[in-house]
Amino acid sequence: MSEPTFIIPLWADLLGVGLGGIQGAMFASGFQGQRRLDWLGVAIIGIMIGMGGGLIRDLMIGQPPATLQNNWYLVTAAGAALFGMLLAGVFNRINIFIVVLDAVVIGMFGAFGVSKAIAFGIPVVPAVFIGVCAAVGGSVLRDMLMGLPVAIMHVGSLYAVAAGVGCTFIVVAHAWGMSITLAAVIGIVVTAVIRVLSVVFDLSLPEQRRLHRRKVAAETGMIPIIKP
Amino acid sequence: MSEPTFIIPLWADLLGVGLGGIQGAMFASGFQGQRRLDWLGVAIIGIMIGMGGGLIRDLMIGQPPATLQNNWYLVTAAGAALFGMLLAGVFNRINIFIVVLDAVVIGMFGAFGVSKAIAFGIPVVPAVFIGVCAAVGGSVLRDMLMGLPVAIMHVGSLYAVAAGVGCTFIVVAHAWGMSITLAAVIGIVVTAVIRVLSVVFDLSLPEQRRLHRRKVAAETGMIPIIKP
Amino acid sequence: MSEPTFIIPLWADLLGVGLGGIQGAMFASGFQGQRRLDWLGVAIIGIMIGMGGGLIRDLMIGQPPATLQNNWYLVTAAGAALFGMLLAGVFNRINIFIVVLDAVVIGMFGAFGVSKAIAFGIPVVPAVFIGVCAAVGGSVLRDMLMGLPVAIMHVGSLYAVAAGVGCTFIVVAHAWGMSITLAAVIGIVVTAVIRVLSVVFDLSLPEQRRLHRRKVAAETGMIPIIKP
Repeated sequence: MSEPTFIIPLWADLLGVGLGGIQGAMFASGFQGQRRLDWLGVAIIGIMIGMGGGLIRDLMIGQPPATLQNNWYLVTAAGAALFGMLLAGVFNRINIFIVVLDAVVIGMFGAFGVSKAIAFGIPVVPAVFIGVCAAVGGSVLRDMLMGLPVAIMHVGSLYAVAAGVGCTFIVVAHAWGMSITLAAVIGIVVTAVIRVLSVVFDLSLPEQRRLHRRKVAAETGMIPIIKP
Repeated sequence: MSEPTFIIPLWADLLGVGLGGIQGAMFASGFQGQRRLDWLGVAIIGIMIGMGGGLIRDLMIGQPPATLQNNWYLVTAAGAALFGMLLAGVFNRINIFIVVLDAVVIGMFGAFGVSKAIAFGIPVVPAVFIGVCAAVGGSVLRDMLMGLPVAIMHVGSLYAVAAGVGCTFIVVAHAWGMSITLAAVIGIVVTAVIRVLSVVFDLSLPEQRRLHRRKVAAETGMIPIIKP
Repeated sequence: MSEPTFIIPLWADLLGVGLGGIQGAMFASGFQGQRRLDWLGVAIIGIMIGMGGGLIRDLMIGQPPATLQNNWYLVTAAGAALFGMLLAGVFNRINIFIVVLDAVVIGMFGAFGVSKAIAFGIPVVPAVFIGVCAAVGGSVLRDMLMGLPVAIMHVGSLYAVAAGVGCTFIVVAHAWGMSITLAAVIGIVVTAVIRVLSVVFDLSLPEQRRLHRRKVAAETGMIPIIKP
């Protein structure tokens, strides 16, 4: 709270953007047969997942978006999206890989969001809220752009809960004197583990269930209402 | 226009956030059987309605979001959303209650939006626009998150018109020398009365018509196109 | 990059807003029979297309929205939207007119976006990105508000590519010493020509294809999934 000069290390920020770009493009590639997302569309989703959470975070904090102050963010996000498209061709059956990648990415975006909010003097409750919005914001934007039901409203509670627990841990640990760096690292692990475990113990992959529904929709030509 | 230190009293701001949170959660609870909005989903909608208008207002004015500078906004919005869920179980037939609550809430958000915009030196035409966007912004975000047709584009003109009249009254009265506080109070009443009267004289509840359509949709499993 | 006092001439900015308002209202009027967009709905879309790109641009740059610092933007956008509604009644078969108008508008929004970003010291890669987002942002907002599939994700790559080429030309020419004004004018022409040519050589009008789908949807009462 006393250090408005706090800066997330560039390499860490770019790592989050890159992993987000890969995950976003792999996810979006899964729709290619049905919705004709061309390469550009997949790249847009990758950039959105990689950079969307940070944009939302900075708008909420009231700062100019950090991801647009530097050439590397867009280059990283676009390159990662292209890499994710190639990976999708190879790994498109290995859904657990997308889920784990997604869990790590929301952990990182949440931790960066809450850390930056604290550094800019935001009180703890909205700081956690900003962290959660940064974690899930990219996927909300993706769903709205792709015309999908917004995952977090239906099957995605696990997202928000996992990010919320990780972000809450960070503010509590920081308030008790833990260094923000160590707290952020542990917070990322906490979020990712909760998210992965919740998927495993649900014995189903939420993303998959939606992919399945889409397949039904493509065959019938209609958008079914989501039912549990 | 000469007082950039103008601040909406915290209690009034929190009252708006709280009433918005209750209204949002009551509205969202009405979908529970069909779309599986879990408790978290309902709480998200409540927070969105309670705080979304203020966020949009501050982004448009170019100020850091006031609702994130203070722990109380989120605590109030979340608490109000939980309260709204409980109320929904008791009052879910009393639709007029939701309509009146909604009318008061858009009046308050509109009045706060236009007042703050004027205080920060925004000219009168965009100040009214910001007020209207603050009034209806939360419900637009709600509809986009829930995958509903955006109400304001179809059945919701009454919203924007009511908020527009109330906000215009405030800038005109203020320009003629009325204190901004008195003008805002009258503006809230004007907006709320127009909104409620327009619902009454339409002899139907717009929200209800949409709830009904949803029910049809849930039975057939398809999303019907909205027709008047 | 050295002149943060750079200002897009008001007349040019208002020209872009006005043409955008006309185009938006003409496009939205085409849906009137099927979705009951009332006059207010059409005006909202017109204002959104006229002013949405500039709002997104300024949020990304981290500046208060220029379109809300002055009464003329909203007056122009609203007046243009009303004019566009009248034109739509006369010209609704002359689709090429809407396409050309649209091409010029995205060229202008892209050029203004990238120019302003450069003037505020944004590096070249995000400056081009901001230009593209300013160019296509209004139509993305329109599609999300109207509940349409977001054009840019499916049939609209031509949009983003055309804007991207024009904006890239501007930063490259400016880096090589061309005055930003001349570069912007050429960039507008480049974007508009690419966009129009791409529509012509596709031998179909993307917007039209979507209008056609909507017509099918209105007859069957269902929303068909978009297939190429």
